[in-house]
Amino acid sequence: MKRARLFHRGREIWATVERGGATLLAPDGEPIAASEAQWLPPVTSGATIFALGLNYADHNAELGFAAKQAAPLIFLKGHATLVGHGGATPRPTDARQMHPECELVAVIGRPTRKVKRGQALDHVMGYTIANDYAVREYLENYYRPNARVKNRDATTPIGPWIVDAADIGDPQALSLTTRVNGVVAQHGSTADMIMDVAGLVEYLSDFMTLLPGDLILTGTPHGLHFVEPGDVIESEIEAIGTLRNQVVSAR
Amino acid sequence: MKRARLFHRGREIWATVERGGATLLAPDGEPIAASEAQWLPPVTSGATIFALGLNYADHNAELGFAAKQAAPLIFLKGHATLVGHGGATPRPTDARQMHPECELVAVIGRPTRKVKRGQALDHVMGYTIANDYAVREYLENYYRPNARVKNRDATTPIGPWIVDAADIGDPQALSLTTRVNGVVAQHGSTADMIMDVAGLVEYLSDFMTLLPGDLILTGTPHGLHFVEPGDVIESEIEAIGTLRNQVVSAR
Repeated sequence: MKRARLFHRGREIWATVERGGATLLAPDGEPIAASEAQWLPPVTSGATIFALGLNYADHNAELGFAAKQAAPLIFLKGHATLVGHGGATPRPTDARQMHPECELVAVIGRPTRKVKRGQALDHVMGYTIANDYAVREYLENYYRPNARVKNRDATTPIGPWIVDAADIGDPQALSLTTRVNGVVAQHGSTADMIMDVAGLVEYLSDFMTLLPGDLILTGTPHGLHFVEPGDVIESEIEAIGTLRNQVVSAR
Repeated sequence: MKRARLFHRGREIWATVERGGATLLAPDGEPIAASEAQWLPPVTSGATIFALGLNYADHNAELGFAAKQAAPLIFLKGHATLVGHGGATPRPTDARQMHPECELVAVIGRPTRKVKRGQALDHVMGYTIANDYAVREYLENYYRPNARVKNRDATTPIGPWIVDAADIGDPQALSLTTRVNGVVAQHGSTADMIMDVAGLVEYLSDFMTLLPGDLILTGTPHGLHFVEPGDVIESEIEAIGTLRNQVVSAR
């Protein structure tokens, strides 16, 4: 089952996705054509949003870092940085080095504390896709990544929907692809994560409580490609779908 | 007016504080003795929680850093790290260098985007107190401060209440004090912030939207004092009140 959060007739609804995404069904059974849907981020209000830096060895090599950090590099994101499928992301007027990052997102399904990796995936209710844009000009700071890089309004497209974990199979065997105006810019596999989804749930839940709806953005593989206003970015993950976003000029 | 969030008769309520904190009034007018109140963090569900590192020059000197960083060092915190007035904070079993940090917290009152510092304080609805504990053993990492330092369960006492901004006067002229078992461990003034509350609201709202209920923890002055299980920590800010917390052993 796929579940999408939509703006529909003046309110937010969770719709189910039918026929491979062509049609959505509102909770009352009303069909909504996907082409006319207004997509919200598929995120529970109040969820805590965790994100990973440097969680793919090939991306670390590309940036000149050691393949494996001493500990997973985890930061948090606020809700104002999210934007749904089909939305627009402003490139700051003084930035040239903004690049998309296709990431598998795990959605927590129940209160989770001190779970071991063998049971960790039982606590994941589903998966979605994020494009966690970075702006390299703003990256360096004593605290990394600073909020000016990773918490700008509307710079984290997410969606289109959450796919039930049961429909995914092995989350560590999915291909990830970013296309810019139809041309492949990033291509990798979740098999190359340094700390996998089960490991991340184990690690985080060892010192904090994960709650239903919390998200873990699991990092991105290699493939740095700077984007410009007007570019259309597609972030695709096997068995989940394709998240579309357009880069626009900041006012 | 002071407003506290309490657990009361099986639900969460916002109570008003009377007689200097001795009595609270439930929304239906029922009086609750402060000594019997069960305090929740005075935080709106879903609020984004921003926190500052190195925002007091005297604290930076104590840590061996430059007095002023190139940009404010902002990170985000999740809700599971909060704990209300009178609560307990576990010290990790492998940590010896855990220390309290008394911080003025600004609470945003309305949607805020690209506000200038001259109008910024009009967007702050009130103030509260946080004790943003740090664990120095866990601090160093490529990403700083990592989630293992600043997002542990129940390691951010906050409260007891939100005081209306109109009752505070100048937020940059308040004394801050931390007492450990009654002995002063930290003493400073919000006058010594590097980026003041108005500046922080201007800075953050320049690149993201602040929403009602969002919190900004504004950093801490000098005074490193390591605490141990059994210690009672009081974080006091002039014109707001005193936030109490006990350090306990982690299980």
